[in-house]
Amino acid sequence: MELKAYLAARQKEIDRALHRFLPKENARPATIHRAMHYSLFAGGKRLRPIICLATAEACGGSVQAAISLACAVECIHTYSLIHDDLPSMDNDDFRRGRPTCHKAFGEGIAVLAGDALLTIAFEIATSAPPAPRYSLRHFMREIASGAGSRRLIAGQVADLEAEGQAISRAELRYIHENKTAALLTTSIRLGAMSANASAQRLDAMTEFGESLGLAFQVIDDILDITQTSEQLGKSAGKDAAAKKATYPAVMGLEKSRAEALRLTNKAHRALEPLGAGAEKLHALAGYLLQREY
Amino acid sequence: MELKAYLAARQKEIDRALHRFLPKENARPATIHRAMHYSLFAGGKRLRPIICLATAEACGGSVQAAISLACAVECIHTYSLIHDDLPSMDNDDFRRGRPTCHKAFGEGIAVLAGDALLTIAFEIATSAPPAPRYSLRHFMREIASGAGSRRLIAGQVADLEAEGQAISRAELRYIHENKTAALLTTSIRLGAMSANASAQRLDAMTEFGESLGLAFQVIDDILDITQTSEQLGKSAGKDAAAKKATYPAVMGLEKSRAEALRLTNKAHRALEPLGAGAEKLHALAGYLLQREY
Repeated sequence: MELKAYLAARQKEIDRALHRFLPKENARPATIHRAMHYSLFAGGKRLRPIICLATAEACGGSVQAAISLACAVECIHTYSLIHDDLPSMDNDDFRRGRPTCHKAFGEGIAVLAGDALLTIAFEIATSAPPAPRYSLRHFMREIASGAGSRRLIAGQVADLEAEGQAISRAELRYIHENKTAALLTTSIRLGAMSANASAQRLDAMTEFGESLGLAFQVIDDILDITQTSEQLGKSAGKDAAAKKATYPAVMGLEKSRAEALRLTNKAHRALEPLGAGAEKLHALAGYLLQREY
Repeated sequence: MELKAYLAARQKEIDRALHRFLPKENARPATIHRAMHYSLFAGGKRLRPIICLATAEACGGSVQAAISLACAVECIHTYSLIHDDLPSMDNDDFRRGRPTCHKAFGEGIAVLAGDALLTIAFEIATSAPPAPRYSLRHFMREIASGAGSRRLIAGQVADLEAEGQAISRAELRYIHENKTAALLTTSIRLGAMSANASAQRLDAMTEFGESLGLAFQVIDDILDITQTSEQLGKSAGKDAAAKKATYPAVMGLEKSRAEALRLTNKAHRALEPLGAGAEKLHALAGYLLQREY
């Protein structure tokens, strides 16, 4: 219950900051700003920015120093959802219980709204104060590489290409590492960098991010086949219908559940060097695993 | 003739730098990197980066300090072409005499290749050395705002929305100011900033960019109706077919030609404070106007 209150408070804080960073909804041209607001304020859980802020605090930093980096990551996450939902990609009609951006605004505007959110992410990140060990250059490179053609976009490409193919467990892992774990790890690393984490600490947080990100995606794969569209707030069973590569498809449901548990335990272990300071991060990882899957 | 040799030499220099900054074509996943190379090395004139470098030199700076900013702008320009060509936007099959990115790689990969080029632009720009008056923060904000939802993307949105509509000359100017002049002005401003230009000098270069950018777009509008697809290296007559808002459509061909000339003269006048140092910029502006229109 305490965690729920924490999540709600952080969500509000992040929403307020995003509203500050974004042009007003009626700024000219209104269509694009309405579309950006529509997707960015669609009731997302703000998981990535929350974990960025929690990491900053666990590493002795502040919300204030990390908030613009957290918001930048959320804009990138939202852009990637808008483009992933397009007919030429996953072709999804619903997201978070409402029509997807292209269903509401048309495909052209959806492509541009994604582009605009990706662009503004870098603008927002310029507000981050440098830490002694990390300058704006480090922050920018972290974001660009996490979101780039060898990480986030690589995952989406590999996912597109795997559709309808029989793929190996290694290939599936490559997709999930990049499609999901990359940006989550970037959020966590940015939080740690904003708190001036040592190289050793940053490595530990990177392992935390990668394990947590993989666990999160395995669970998402499972939920797609075990839950209804209503429970998910998006179309259920889409992965199977699109012959997507998923953990349940490659290794079966029970082994996928065991894998999710193994990865989450690995994530918890990565936090050990932080001691009591990592309490919130443990709680967040637990929260992700305890979704009913 | 001297200018042609200059352009060719600069084009080579920029291509070499872009090859250095980009992942290899066969980097995993190969599809996305092949698509990025396909569009980025399609024989573009490199007008924006060339004018960025020429501005840096005219303001007493160096190619070395400006080259990564110049390459960042070219990546943004190429991403915007890939996305503009999509079926949901301008629906163009040819670009620079070859199939457009989505025709060659499919729509999903074309969306992602555009995303990847936009992302890598910000990564490339982090290599720019700061000038006394301008830090990486200034460079990043310049790029993000020039490419963002109130400039480059605003122009594309307004252009999409104007299709088939009767629009005023003021609205047409808004489209062209943002769709074309914004990124050209950003290139020029980045060149001036890399050379540590004073605020006054930067203002003059901004006016140069805006006038030149508008002139360039008016000429493009004219060429679309006066040249063949072969001459253009892209589909001719598309603007009229798509009921696009263009200068010839709004004010007729002769008045459009006069407007192009007026704007180019304004661009030349903006360079006056730079004296003899602006010789190359005058030549470049002349070259743009002297395209046969």
